Amino acid sequence: MTNSSLAAPDATLVERLATANRILYNEGVVDGFGHVSVRHDRSAGHFLLARNMAPALVTPADILTFDLDGTPIDAGDRRVYLERFIHGEIYRVRPDVVAVVHSHSPNVIPFAVTKTPLRPVYHMSGFLGEGTAHFEIRDVAGNSDLLIRNSALGRALATALGVRSAVLMRGHGSTVVGTSLEQVVYRAIYAEMNARLQTQATALGAVTYLNAEEAALAAATNDTQLARVWELWQRKVER
Amino acid sequence: MTNSSLAAPDATLVERLATANRILYNEGVVDGFGHVSVRHDRSAGHFLLARNMAPALVTPADILTFDLDGTPIDAGDRRVYLERFIHGEIYRVRPDVVAVVHSHSPNVIPFAVTKTPLRPVYHMSGFLGEGTAHFEIRDVAGNSDLLIRNSALGRALATALGVRSAVLMRGHGSTVVGTSLEQVVYRAIYAEMNARLQTQATALGAVTYLNAEEAALAAATNDTQLARVWELWQRKVER
Amino acid sequence: MTNSSLAAPDATLVERLATANRILYNEGVVDGFGHVSVRHDRSAGHFLLARNMAPALVTPADILTFDLDGTPIDAGDRRVYLERFIHGEIYRVRPDVVAVVHSHSPNVIPFAVTKTPLRPVYHMSGFLGEGTAHFEIRDVAGNSDLLIRNSALGRALATALGVRSAVLMRGHGSTVVGTSLEQVVYRAIYAEMNARLQTQATALGAVTYLNAEEAALAAATNDTQLARVWELWQRKVER
Amino acid sequence: MTNSSLAAPDATLVERLATANRILYNEGVVDGFGHVSVRHDRSAGHFLLARNMAPALVTPADILTFDLDGTPIDAGDRRVYLERFIHGEIYRVRPDVVAVVHSHSPNVIPFAVTKTPLRPVYHMSGFLGEGTAHFEIRDVAGNSDLLIRNSALGRALATALGVRSAVLMRGHGSTVVGTSLEQVVYRAIYAEMNARLQTQATALGAVTYLNAEEAALAAATNDTQLARVWELWQRKVER
Repeated sequence: MTNSSLAAPDATLVERLATANRILYNEGVVDGFGHVSVRHDRSAGHFLLARNMAPALVTPADILTFDLDGTPIDAGDRRVYLERFIHGEIYRVRPDVVAVVHSHSPNVIPFAVTKTPLRPVYHMSGFLGEGTAHFEIRDVAGNSDLLIRNSALGRALATALGVRSAVLMRGHGSTVVGTSLEQVVYRAIYAEMNARLQTQATALGAVTYLNAEEAALAAATNDTQLARVWELWQRKVER
Repeated sequence: MTNSSLAAPDATLVERLATANRILYNEGVVDGFGHVSVRHDRSAGHFLLARNMAPALVTPADILTFDLDGTPIDAGDRRVYLERFIHGEIYRVRPDVVAVVHSHSPNVIPFAVTKTPLRPVYHMSGFLGEGTAHFEIRDVAGNSDLLIRNSALGRALATALGVRSAVLMRGHGSTVVGTSLEQVVYRAIYAEMNARLQTQATALGAVTYLNAEEAALAAATNDTQLARVWELWQRKVER
Repeated sequence: MTNSSLAAPDATLVERLATANRILYNEGVVDGFGHVSVRHDRSAGHFLLARNMAPALVTPADILTFDLDGTPIDAGDRRVYLERFIHGEIYRVRPDVVAVVHSHSPNVIPFAVTKTPLRPVYHMSGFLGEGTAHFEIRDVAGNSDLLIRNSALGRALATALGVRSAVLMRGHGSTVVGTSLEQVVYRAIYAEMNARLQTQATALGAVTYLNAEEAALAAATNDTQLARVWELWQRKVER
Repeated sequence: MTNSSLAAPDATLVERLATANRILYNEGVVDGFGHVSVRHDRSAGHFLLARNMAPALVTPADILTFDLDGTPIDAGDRRVYLERFIHGEIYRVRPDVVAVVHSHSPNVIPFAVTKTPLRPVYHMSGFLGEGTAHFEIRDVAGNSDLLIRNSALGRALATALGVRSAVLMRGHGSTVVGTSLEQVVYRAIYAEMNARLQTQATALGAVTYLNAEEAALAAATNDTQLARVWELWQRKVER
């Protein structure tokens, strides 16, 4: 499929992606930085992502299409995110992934910089399974500005992520993946909440985390309840 | 009393229950998940609970009636909460209980997952008495999704609760009970606040908790002041 | 002066007291509970305090007049606060005090229950001088509901306060005094902030507190800047 | 250049400075206290700063012009900030500095009072380089009200700052400098966020901070993204 023949994405998907941007801001996952993408519904080799701007302000008109190399199809003279390679390279190696959130979600950072994995403290974060992956950019790029600013760094990050649902990035933030836009937004929000709870619990005493089977069962159940919270989050950003 | 002959609940009670849902969201006890119920005012063998939805959005039209087995009387094709059994089984064994809140109230979770009881740090949480009960679902169900998804698990939880006012559920959240809707909302809000204060106090030094007699006396006094805070909480959600 | 001949308080003072109630709620010092009073501007033997209600909802029409024994002059059938004796007994023994705040300000509670004095971490809380007083109601009343519900308990609290500007009450909260309504509101807000900062600083390392001379000098300077913050706080509650 | 011949500052700059005041309040850097200045665009020997008032309420009409000695040119009978000398003396010795923020930003205070430098935990705070400077006013002024209330104290603070971007002031707060208004607002906001994250990370385990080269590279990249966040912050205060 050449770019010129690429079908337009579903308008509802574009709208949901814009909404996802505002939800992630409203729920404290992203601030002026961070981004969320979704795989193109008509081409597995493309994904949708806002132009370079604060997520809280994104509208459907700001959504661009990229190929997996991170090249924008329809950006014109609009600036694009430096770290779009996070998205493309994960979509390339993880066919199961339909949506990706990259953020500096504050409660997660302390885990990333102390190389402490997030582990599920409660059923809401069953998707964390037996823990998060860790990415140390120094091992790949030496001293850098810590950004995933090209395909090689994107590939290295995707490799670190492996089959997990989240990777913590030292000195930077985290990236969470999901099988739908609603699911990845849920995961980004509850990764942040789990980080906060895990920090507090660790200070209180010895924590009993969900074991692998509990985590998998809880994650499966939660996936049946996504519409409920999405409705709430959407209403809040529409106010 | 057969279901067909069950009298309709008092309209004011239904309205107060809808308000309680929104208050619990507004005060940070529930997020997109969690629920509050009240015993039917015309039948001790039934209780009122919203359909499966985010508490913040509940209106009187969303309130359903259940029997103590958790079977909905009037749900039609509306989805119900997976964990309605928490409510029914507690109402069954605790005739004194008129209202129940189940939540993932964030400051309480670290206590639940470290098996640390909440204890009353100040008079506002005298209802915590000499501490909270603890429920470990693994002891009953082995590995599970941690939800109270049937009557047997509900019974086990009710047994763990015993005569106390709150039970902490490992890997999950907590359940608080009361003798009125106003009281259980008060208890859920101040259980969360007590958890936050207990966490901070524990880090500072040796804590002098309320003893059993102080706790009982303070709880009795607070019960005379519920109208004052309910008025405030109600006004806030009506804005 | 007999009650029948007591002049009405200045209308502006009554309005400022109502505003002070709403400010203290808005800035997180009081929730549904807590109260602020001011000494009557025409009689040193009386003080003004809202009827029993949530501070956030207080308007000038809710302000009552009490004598120092805590007897309301003009309450009619309106309920009064159980703990009005805090105010009367402090006004009795501290002629310098013009306004009193009693609250369960959350960051202060952990200090009260671990018998840790608040000490000034920065110039904004110079009024904390060399530390706060401590009050253990068990020493006076044995086991109780922890409330200051009569004159004898009020006197004991006032004695514990001594010449300081704040007293921490075990299992309960704190009481702050000042020489004006604006000053006591400032002190209540910055006592709460100092508690938060002191908690965090203590976890980080050895704290250098203000010494006695620094504290006195800083407090004197801050008193010249009260109009600035009062204007801000007032505007916020008027929105 | 004599004051009488001093050209008026650019109207847009004055407006941006008023906006900066409101942004810093809205983002939690300043409360009723704290201030932000910018160097005069027509005279390196002057700077712009609001009259003595709460930053949240500043409008363009409240902006005054000062010379580097802290003498206001156009204040008339309006009160000026006691600590304007912070700004003048830094502008004098740091020709690269175009804007200065002084605040009591809450998460930073615990670092200032325990003599713990802030260090960059993530790329967003690369401007912190290898750490913050520390200022102990007792070494210069003995016991004082801790304020920078004259040129001599301003000079001592500027000396402590040296070539760094931020100086922590024991018992007081912090001062951050930048090469533009947008940059200094960014730095003040992310110094506060870095402090929060560093506190949490330190409690979790051994932190890997950005090294000097990473910090410099990250800071350079972030400077290219300032317009994005300024747009967001501005929109929020305009609502």
